[in-house]
Amino acid sequence: MCSAKALPKFKTLKPSYGFDEVAIVPGDVTLNPDQTNTDFTIGEYTFKIPFMASAMDSVVDVKIVKHLHKLGGLAVLNLDGIQARYENPDEILEKIAKLPDSEVTAYMQKVYREPIKEKLIGERVRQIKKAKAIAAISLVPANTKKFAPIVAEAGGDILVIQSTVTSARHISKSYRGLRFAELTEQLKMPVVVGNCVSYNACLELMRTGIAGVLVGVGPGAACTSREVLGIGVPQITATIDCAAARDEFYRESGKYIPIITDGGLRKGGDICKSFAAGTDAVMIGSPIAQTEEAPGRGYHWGMSQISPTLPRGTRIKVGINTTLEKLFFGPTSKTHGTENFVGALKTAMGFCGAATIQEMHNAEMVIAPSIGTEGKIYQMTQGV
Amino acid sequence: MCSAKALPKFKTLKPSYGFDEVAIVPGDVTLNPDQTNTDFTIGEYTFKIPFMASAMDSVVDVKIVKHLHKLGGLAVLNLDGIQARYENPDEILEKIAKLPDSEVTAYMQKVYREPIKEKLIGERVRQIKKAKAIAAISLVPANTKKFAPIVAEAGGDILVIQSTVTSARHISKSYRGLRFAELTEQLKMPVVVGNCVSYNACLELMRTGIAGVLVGVGPGAACTSREVLGIGVPQITATIDCAAARDEFYRESGKYIPIITDGGLRKGGDICKSFAAGTDAVMIGSPIAQTEEAPGRGYHWGMSQISPTLPRGTRIKVGINTTLEKLFFGPTSKTHGTENFVGALKTAMGFCGAATIQEMHNAEMVIAPSIGTEGKIYQMTQGV
Amino acid sequence: MCSAKALPKFKTLKPSYGFDEVAIVPGDVTLNPDQTNTDFTIGEYTFKIPFMASAMDSVVDVKIVKHLHKLGGLAVLNLDGIQARYENPDEILEKIAKLPDSEVTAYMQKVYREPIKEKLIGERVRQIKKAKAIAAISLVPANTKKFAPIVAEAGGDILVIQSTVTSARHISKSYRGLRFAELTEQLKMPVVVGNCVSYNACLELMRTGIAGVLVGVGPGAACTSREVLGIGVPQITATIDCAAARDEFYRESGKYIPIITDGGLRKGGDICKSFAAGTDAVMIGSPIAQTEEAPGRGYHWGMSQISPTLPRGTRIKVGINTTLEKLFFGPTSKTHGTENFVGALKTAMGFCGAATIQEMHNAEMVIAPSIGTEGKIYQMTQGV
Amino acid sequence: MCSAKALPKFKTLKPSYGFDEVAIVPGDVTLNPDQTNTDFTIGEYTFKIPFMASAMDSVVDVKIVKHLHKLGGLAVLNLDGIQARYENPDEILEKIAKLPDSEVTAYMQKVYREPIKEKLIGERVRQIKKAKAIAAISLVPANTKKFAPIVAEAGGDILVIQSTVTSARHISKSYRGLRFAELTEQLKMPVVVGNCVSYNACLELMRTGIAGVLVGVGPGAACTSREVLGIGVPQITATIDCAAARDEFYRESGKYIPIITDGGLRKGGDICKSFAAGTDAVMIGSPIAQTEEAPGRGYHWGMSQISPTLPRGTRIKVGINTTLEKLFFGPTSKTHGTENFVGALKTAMGFCGAATIQEMHNAEMVIAPSIGTEGKIYQMTQGV
Repeated sequence: MCSAKALPKFKTLKPSYGFDEVAIVPGDVTLNPDQTNTDFTIGEYTFKIPFMASAMDSVVDVKIVKHLHKLGGLAVLNLDGIQARYENPDEILEKIAKLPDSEVTAYMQKVYREPIKEKLIGERVRQIKKAKAIAAISLVPANTKKFAPIVAEAGGDILVIQSTVTSARHISKSYRGLRFAELTEQLKMPVVVGNCVSYNACLELMRTGIAGVLVGVGPGAACTSREVLGIGVPQITATIDCAAARDEFYRESGKYIPIITDGGLRKGGDICKSFAAGTDAVMIGSPIAQTEEAPGRGYHWGMSQISPTLPRGTRIKVGINTTLEKLFFGPTSKTHGTENFVGALKTAMGFCGAATIQEMHNAEMVIAPSIGTEGKIYQMTQGV
Repeated sequence: MCSAKALPKFKTLKPSYGFDEVAIVPGDVTLNPDQTNTDFTIGEYTFKIPFMASAMDSVVDVKIVKHLHKLGGLAVLNLDGIQARYENPDEILEKIAKLPDSEVTAYMQKVYREPIKEKLIGERVRQIKKAKAIAAISLVPANTKKFAPIVAEAGGDILVIQSTVTSARHISKSYRGLRFAELTEQLKMPVVVGNCVSYNACLELMRTGIAGVLVGVGPGAACTSREVLGIGVPQITATIDCAAARDEFYRESGKYIPIITDGGLRKGGDICKSFAAGTDAVMIGSPIAQTEEAPGRGYHWGMSQISPTLPRGTRIKVGINTTLEKLFFGPTSKTHGTENFVGALKTAMGFCGAATIQEMHNAEMVIAPSIGTEGKIYQMTQGV
Repeated sequence: MCSAKALPKFKTLKPSYGFDEVAIVPGDVTLNPDQTNTDFTIGEYTFKIPFMASAMDSVVDVKIVKHLHKLGGLAVLNLDGIQARYENPDEILEKIAKLPDSEVTAYMQKVYREPIKEKLIGERVRQIKKAKAIAAISLVPANTKKFAPIVAEAGGDILVIQSTVTSARHISKSYRGLRFAELTEQLKMPVVVGNCVSYNACLELMRTGIAGVLVGVGPGAACTSREVLGIGVPQITATIDCAAARDEFYRESGKYIPIITDGGLRKGGDICKSFAAGTDAVMIGSPIAQTEEAPGRGYHWGMSQISPTLPRGTRIKVGINTTLEKLFFGPTSKTHGTENFVGALKTAMGFCGAATIQEMHNAEMVIAPSIGTEGKIYQMTQGV
Repeated sequence: MCSAKALPKFKTLKPSYGFDEVAIVPGDVTLNPDQTNTDFTIGEYTFKIPFMASAMDSVVDVKIVKHLHKLGGLAVLNLDGIQARYENPDEILEKIAKLPDSEVTAYMQKVYREPIKEKLIGERVRQIKKAKAIAAISLVPANTKKFAPIVAEAGGDILVIQSTVTSARHISKSYRGLRFAELTEQLKMPVVVGNCVSYNACLELMRTGIAGVLVGVGPGAACTSREVLGIGVPQITATIDCAAARDEFYRESGKYIPIITDGGLRKGGDICKSFAAGTDAVMIGSPIAQTEEAPGRGYHWGMSQISPTLPRGTRIKVGINTTLEKLFFGPTSKTHGTENFVGALKTAMGFCGAATIQEMHNAEMVIAPSIGTEGKIYQMTQGV
């Protein structure tokens, strides 16, 4: 009796937002910053500041791991890169920093062809443990089965398995897909996995028993994953979606698995917005690459750059902006939000009346125009 | 009988708009500008022009207070800054204007470490009252209990309590939170409080018995609060939300408490849009800092810049654009809306058929693209 | 039994669009351009091309009126400006074109203080009629009662009454508001009125018996009305709203009153989009100011610039781009759409399968991003 | 009993999106790139890579046809241009590349006035067939009836009928409209038609029996069709709409007619997004014009540029970026996505868990801000 003609089906697109398109609305209650607590927990480890340093050769070496441990955060050492390929990584890093742009890509492609040494994996872990710092070690999925036991044996505390996009179900011809459920059962240490950006992918990962999820794929319009592959989700939306998955997983399991927004964070404002969007911690790369202590010596590069057939990203001169301590705690005379990240976070939490990171997740946010005109008027009136 | 699976909960973001993203639609009726009335009232004080000058050291000194009083507006003197710390503030201001960029931040951090003198607070108020001008005095919340009685005793007319974000419920370890309800009962003079940007925060403030609310936190994308802390709401949305709170408070109490849009206003267009969005007055800083009479001598800076650990903003060279009188009343030969603010407001009101500020609140507005291309074509065709 | 708490009322903002934010979707049927008809009618006058030249001193003089008449369009002579103040306007125009920027504003303010001569009003009309061209004369509302009879007596064909914003109900102290209903009854000639941008204002104007409505107030983000007063509506939205009023008036009265999009049109694309949005004709200024024949001699300025207290806009060097004939009919070797406007319109109509302007009103349109990146890639790859 | 007043009818505008405004969300499952298949079929011809080269004189000559055939794709030879007008096209192409900008338009207008030679049409087809490559030949609608038989007789495999906008129902005075239904019945070879951008136009074309539809009209904001005519739809929306038409046609007829996104594709990201939006193949011009092998010798131009009365577009210096093989397969040391298009597509498909192009159509997409700020921070912090 009722015959409806099927309507044409058009693909629908969901809006998404990055750091520059949103802002935090101050709360109805306000707190003094000294009454805020920024504790962050992975497995049984609790950190005073919810900051992780990216597992990149230009960002973290053993020295940074120790230093950030003292400051209350967690630096992840990449054992798929220079640190696991060379006895003396500083020699290589020094050369990368010194080569002209025209020669550096070829040199780096050569550097990363050197095989990983199992011996060095254990040694790096032990160097960290000797200083009583927490040893968080990063591996790529393809190497995890082989090297994870070495990390465990050497006393590693946290394993980070990271690639551009990681899903709970990866299908491969060349190696039997890593099963996170099996891995987390076998290993004693908490496993942090990433990156992912969507509700479903995040929820599936959490159901495998992992201890944390890194959030972020091609966050910016100028990101190389976005330019080369078209793939990526702006970080505020990625964080909101994965936070919803975390909350759903908590409802279904009673387990609170932290998410860590990773990628594209440059300023205090980006960091505060990530927490308001729902993250439990942030992972930062380039701001640390810009510290005096960073192994990159004023340069920064990603791992995906190394691909011999499809490089994405390039060695970027980021310069030296500050020290590691000032980056997190100031004092600062800079006014653009590139120092004193912890001070900025605690001030923002105070303005939102949030005593803890979890309370900060409830801060109201607005979509705000990303193009400012402040300052233009001066030039205009000056010119007359 | 009905068991619905809970849907995942995603944080939602509300759109927001600043001056550059909106425009006013002319009305169905139009008026000659000479038939518009721009009166604005705080407590029992009525001002011919709805303009306040920001309580900033580069914007207002005693001289500006007197001058703006004659012109029909209200300048607020900041007694948390140089005026209350130094017997002879002009000496300090002169030096700030003369120092090179490289030395000025350090010098200013030193200048603002000098303690506030209670004696000077009374003296500044008396200087204003001697000229029979209205003495509106600004204090920060932490100093209010201590200094407000001195202001009152010296004959102050209006008290302005201002910080980056002010809420009716502030929680602090170091001092017992200021209770506005207690304060407004004790003091005889009207108390204006700010800043806030949301419906609830504004409504709660109004319920404490205060006489006006300053609206504006991190209004622009390039605002330092936005960059450093991620906090801020574009001014049109902030004004619309606080105007709704004012109207709600009027419905529930019968009292009409004015709101004052404060921050980011540079041009006549910004000002007219603020009134169309619902403000009762505007507070302007940099346009006054650009007058010949301003204490900043062509420079402008905010109070939050002075923080020794987390400075936001910097001393900006704004130059001298006009005189105080021309700024408000013209005549002008400038065509960018940086002079004759009152003329612009009355003309816009006429185009909207608004005889009063309250009628201007009813003007229709549109969301309009902020990127103009006018002018581009000339370059194009010229180049061929 | 039912007591609902009133919800807070927030002002709502309607989205609006300008030329750069929209595009036309080609039709399911296509036509050869030679099968399109672009006739446009005001009162009893029909024009082969739906183009009017703006009543501005830099755009139209008697010579342009005659020339555009021959080409099939209609140029409106401004008799509130130089043409009605000076016996020999070319002398004045020559001097405006030659003065340096620093002196021109003062000179122009002086030029426009010279009183209007009634004798010259009649003379200009007669000059046009002698050439058998249609005499469309523009007056400002305040002068209409006084000068319209002179225009009529001299044989004027169409009266254009134009100011920044014109409403059917203007309230003024200094002169009794012009009543369009009375005027259209008294005058024999069709009266075109403007400018307006909203449905209601346009509908009210049409109900007074006028013969056409000019659409456009502060169309662009960089428009001076927008910067100085905050007033303006992007042209596509203004045209859509006024077209809806025209259609409504046609439904209620059976009379089809044309609307004319006026302001901000620079390229063929802008013009075609205006017709797709619903306009019956376009009024263009700067593209004509850029022709060899234009009285502006490569310069362009608006009437609102002349205000001694609140100037908006400035003399702009637009240069000489083409001739009047090529502007409308080509041929052109320019590829940016700044010549052959009629060819562009007919081609676009063909792509939309529109045989007439009225059919073009039905073309589908999309909101399309205004920021293009085409061309960027070249620089990128060239630089490597 | 019920009399509703008709509401005013406002034209509505549908949002649309281009490459820069969207991004692909990675899937819940991921695949190794080596497990993806990118086959693409027109009629009975299947191609290993879903890439077609645009039928433009600067992009395709016989040499490119053969070369791209070997690489697994399909280059379309334009027989409405230089290849069909000159015995020795290289001579002409060489001269176009060498002339200065000031002389080239006039020269090209002359070059394209030379008549098409029927003899050359057959000869070009035979040159391709001699190399056992697939001969896809492009004609304009007006020449199709006359030249299609020659193409068929010479052994052409695929006919491409292409103009700026092509509809199933074109009305013309000068020639009886081409009927695709008749043509596809008469011709033995598959006919690919374009361009179109909307659901209805695409569906109507498919119903005429054609074998493929080219999608794309004025895709970018800076496109000349958009600037000159206001006509155009951003490619993601055009692709989504035409993909819906293809799926609808498949439901009603059981025939799967491929669509090919054509125009504006520059980077790997653009290509991957086109497939996620629903295309079956992409047609690229400028990236091929930038190869060493391209007939344009580092220059690129469109056919619509040649119009003597309304040229759109111009000769652009695009430079030499890569080789044809590297463009599709790498290896590359470029990091902006301008080489290794097939590698990029397979990697993106893997990240989306898509084993085939049809599965890639199901990838989730987001609307993502097109303005990135990455990199800005460096300049900021370096400058301090």
